Amino acid sequence: MILVNGSDNDHIELSDRGFQYGDGLFETIAVRNGKPVCFDRHLARLKDGCERLYIPFPGAELLTLESRQLVQQTTDSVLKIILTRGSGGRGYRQPDTVNTTRVLSLHPFPEYPSSYKETGIITRFCNTRLGTNPSLAGIKHLNRLEQVMARAEWSDPSIQEGIMLDINGYVIEGTMTNLFYVKNNRLYTSPIDQSGIAGIIRSIIMQVSSSYGYPVIVHNFTKEQLLSADELFLTNSIVGIWPVRQLEETFFDKGLITQRIQAMLTQFYNETIKDDF
Amino acid sequence: MILVNGSDNDHIELSDRGFQYGDGLFETIAVRNGKPVCFDRHLARLKDGCERLYIPFPGAELLTLESRQLVQQTTDSVLKIILTRGSGGRGYRQPDTVNTTRVLSLHPFPEYPSSYKETGIITRFCNTRLGTNPSLAGIKHLNRLEQVMARAEWSDPSIQEGIMLDINGYVIEGTMTNLFYVKNNRLYTSPIDQSGIAGIIRSIIMQVSSSYGYPVIVHNFTKEQLLSADELFLTNSIVGIWPVRQLEETFFDKGLITQRIQAMLTQFYNETIKDDF
Repeated sequence: MILVNGSDNDHIELSDRGFQYGDGLFETIAVRNGKPVCFDRHLARLKDGCERLYIPFPGAELLTLESRQLVQQTTDSVLKIILTRGSGGRGYRQPDTVNTTRVLSLHPFPEYPSSYKETGIITRFCNTRLGTNPSLAGIKHLNRLEQVMARAEWSDPSIQEGIMLDINGYVIEGTMTNLFYVKNNRLYTSPIDQSGIAGIIRSIIMQVSSSYGYPVIVHNFTKEQLLSADELFLTNSIVGIWPVRQLEETFFDKGLITQRIQAMLTQFYNETIKDDF
Repeated sequence: MILVNGSDNDHIELSDRGFQYGDGLFETIAVRNGKPVCFDRHLARLKDGCERLYIPFPGAELLTLESRQLVQQTTDSVLKIILTRGSGGRGYRQPDTVNTTRVLSLHPFPEYPSSYKETGIITRFCNTRLGTNPSLAGIKHLNRLEQVMARAEWSDPSIQEGIMLDINGYVIEGTMTNLFYVKNNRLYTSPIDQSGIAGIIRSIIMQVSSSYGYPVIVHNFTKEQLLSADELFLTNSIVGIWPVRQLEETFFDKGLITQRIQAMLTQFYNETIKDDF
């Protein structure tokens, strides 16, 4: 079932600005045992994205209600929420009254081998660069051609993710993940104020890792710096944390800090998944 | 009437990658006396965009046939063609077989006052910047949040267009137009190899203006350089050429070169509009 503005539907008006211009936002939320994981954080990010794009936020209550309608049919799945600026307006100009479009859909939870979490994945660098633009950076918006083009660069099924640089040559993130690395027992990640997406797992790790003695250092770094890392891992809401065991011709061990951050995330999940969703 | 893959429809599948990721292209074509203006050029740009994005091009013949179905009902109108990478794939990854979605729709020709062409329009600078990315620059793709955000900056109906800079501070184009300026009898425009759209009128002007003694000089320029211009005009397929009579607090006359380029474009239209469309 897909809910479009509360009604069961699998189509959208062609005039919707999501289709015409990619004028909207989305969230991809893990559903475990019938409960969306970190739902409050996903809603908060949606709300923040709406504010940055001046799209009226439909309200946490309504989105919770509709999400509940969908996830009650499921145990493990993926809940996708798309919000767009609705239909209308003249060209790029938005209509005087925006009626935000809500699309909530449920998808099978992807069956990744357990080795991805346990021993890590194989990755490559993408040639497609991330453009930089502070006004859109961090937002999980619907303008995702860069990621599509980057993902189209390889079809080898043994490679699970591609790592993207920005146009200045700094490493930013994977096509669908944020990126962290460890060097000399310190934990690093890229800034996402010029490009990239402010991932939910990224923000959790940044919030709670200090208390484990690994405050995250946000800085710009190059391919070469990344390849000299001691540990390397990727994060998103569906996969959680994937250690990287190979990036191009360089091999990495799943180190102690990656293991601790994985354990920390599991503990965080256990403490925050609400029974009352 | 709207044609979606040849059938009358006003909805699109939610799974279409145009909606999910802005994964597609579009053209906005002036229709005059039942004939799409510069149709061959629009098709050529679509084909070029498809090649750059690895989207299978449905073929000029099919698009011509379907365009003909629509425009035969009209005299003056706007024909919009959207092509997307179709439905399917896993996340950003495209499906193994891409079935390009075609959406052709007809819209009323916007009724702009004749003064816009004759004496010019009022414009402003936008705060929203264009991100730079060579791999997507020039393409008229569906990732248009930057233009939407720029257009949302003003609602004053006396201002007809906003002029956008890139993140490096260079002037690139209007939210829906390309930009030319004249200084000391020389004609200049911005490069569009880092951001911006390769407009059809822009390319016509660049092609034929040399023979009128005004070869276009493509170079990077700043706000200040633009404000010191002798003449300034904006172009797109629907409006043709709009002289700028005011940009922020600076006033411009519609100069001789702008008038000549307008006349040149009219002549070009007259020579190229085919009777046999």
